[in-house]
Amino acid sequence: MTLSNTIKILRTVQQVRQWRLQCLLNRETVGFVPTMGALHDGHCSLVSQSLKENDRTVVSIFVNPSQFAPHEDLDAYPRTVDSDLSMLSSQFKEKVVDAVFIPKISEMYPSGITLELSKQKGAFVTVQGCSEQLEGVTRPQFFRGVATVVTKLLNVVTPDKIYFGQKDAQQCVVIKNLVKDLLINTEVRVMPTLREKNGLAMSSRNAYLSPSTREGSAIIYKALSSGQQTYESLSKGSPPRVPSSVILNNIRGVLNEKKDFEIEYIAVSHPETLEDLEYVEPGTGAIVSTAVKVPRADGSGQARLIDNIVLV
Amino acid sequence: MTLSNTIKILRTVQQVRQWRLQCLLNRETVGFVPTMGALHDGHCSLVSQSLKENDRTVVSIFVNPSQFAPHEDLDAYPRTVDSDLSMLSSQFKEKVVDAVFIPKISEMYPSGITLELSKQKGAFVTVQGCSEQLEGVTRPQFFRGVATVVTKLLNVVTPDKIYFGQKDAQQCVVIKNLVKDLLINTEVRVMPTLREKNGLAMSSRNAYLSPSTREGSAIIYKALSSGQQTYESLSKGSPPRVPSSVILNNIRGVLNEKKDFEIEYIAVSHPETLEDLEYVEPGTGAIVSTAVKVPRADGSGQARLIDNIVLV
Repeated sequence: MTLSNTIKILRTVQQVRQWRLQCLLNRETVGFVPTMGALHDGHCSLVSQSLKENDRTVVSIFVNPSQFAPHEDLDAYPRTVDSDLSMLSSQFKEKVVDAVFIPKISEMYPSGITLELSKQKGAFVTVQGCSEQLEGVTRPQFFRGVATVVTKLLNVVTPDKIYFGQKDAQQCVVIKNLVKDLLINTEVRVMPTLREKNGLAMSSRNAYLSPSTREGSAIIYKALSSGQQTYESLSKGSPPRVPSSVILNNIRGVLNEKKDFEIEYIAVSHPETLEDLEYVEPGTGAIVSTAVKVPRADGSGQARLIDNIVLV
Repeated sequence: MTLSNTIKILRTVQQVRQWRLQCLLNRETVGFVPTMGALHDGHCSLVSQSLKENDRTVVSIFVNPSQFAPHEDLDAYPRTVDSDLSMLSSQFKEKVVDAVFIPKISEMYPSGITLELSKQKGAFVTVQGCSEQLEGVTRPQFFRGVATVVTKLLNVVTPDKIYFGQKDAQQCVVIKNLVKDLLINTEVRVMPTLREKNGLAMSSRNAYLSPSTREGSAIIYKALSSGQQTYESLSKGSPPRVPSSVILNNIRGVLNEKKDFEIEYIAVSHPETLEDLEYVEPGTGAIVSTAVKVPRADGSGQARLIDNIVLV
């Protein structure tokens, strides 16, 4: 494959450090977009934003084993590094991505890593209070894995700004707390969810869906939007607080139209602490999030889709 | 009090970052000695080493709450900031300490901190595999607290080298793994234990002891040294491997001479993984460590003293 010469491929921690030190000595700001590859327009919008806001932009592509449980889709997770690199070298015209960090597992986990929690050795980062609920219920090691790898990446790249998509709402809360608590000198930027034309939130896992399920999955955003409308009309009342149960029932009603979709959760949570909210009030607002299991195209069970909407 | 003008007192994370950035832009290397204050000659030897090996040296003084359990001595832990600062400004002649970081708890724990593990919120770092044994048995949250605060301090100071004393042998192993696994760009330097004339390892907690207990506590190093002699003579045999039980019995025999001392543990461990060793062989070697409870001068129970010796 041919790659624009301007993108540096960095494979080791040492290479990233050298590149980063040069930026620092040049007094250039650095934006960082961590990804697991399988890039789509959602990632590209994060990259665009980083290109706008920083002198230099580095993207990482690393499928992080420690955020997968032994029964999850680590092996099946789409790996498309070649097309990821062409996308990164062709999509951006005015300014280009400066470097892509593609480490091996041994580079990121020098003590090794097994997916079995009880057998893991070495340093891990947990963010207590916002990792246990929502996604954390069915994926109890997920945010520990995310927090650990993001801490490592931040220690290597030491960016001025790091970019995440609002689609992974809980991840954004976990990372914001991580950066605040561990006194990491990086600003966390959260960008709006990018959506397909039908409203489906862009996700690398959408690749698991047949065209018809992909179309049908539009109902997730339709349901959340319906909940938002309910909130917006009821919050004009006096007092302006809206019971979460009304919003939840509304969303559930819409999602129930799809008989082959399985709702894992729908939740109304505090936007900063992710505490369960009984009521939503303008000012504080809420994150309304859901996880829905839908049939996979290959018949091998279900894919888990998540989405959320922010009430203000 | 009067302080040498040359030591900068830094109280906020922001002040440390500004100071550190200036060092970096000047291409000056930075050595860092983290302490909980109550400085003694052991700390000073770490500072001396840092002054030798780096252009700039920064010391932190912070009694870290998260490494104390609710029943431990957080409130009683000696706090002597004024004399610590005079010591730092007067002890070093050829080169001086450049900065001392004395943060408030809220600066290091922006999400707050309670000693009750189950109620803690925010980001914490654990180092699995070397935190559970030895000191970790009776102090199950100790190394999580140490690893968390050292991660924060490293993120703020970003030193080239960080200094610890061999006296806290398990802490040194935990920190080395932490730095390796979290890909922190700092070299961990471990310096030999400094001892009183009678052999007692220097420790801020020695302040809890009466002069006679302080004298009697010399037996701890005497016992460890006796174990070392046993190892050295037996390891000249063929095969050169020495059963740990022989070393342990030897040490226990010496310690048992003091009837008012209570042995918490004596252990023979792998020097890098802290795995329990059944035999010690030259080449691999071992850390032989002990924790002993001795009477406190104020009659309020016992002080816990730890010490260790490295077999090679």
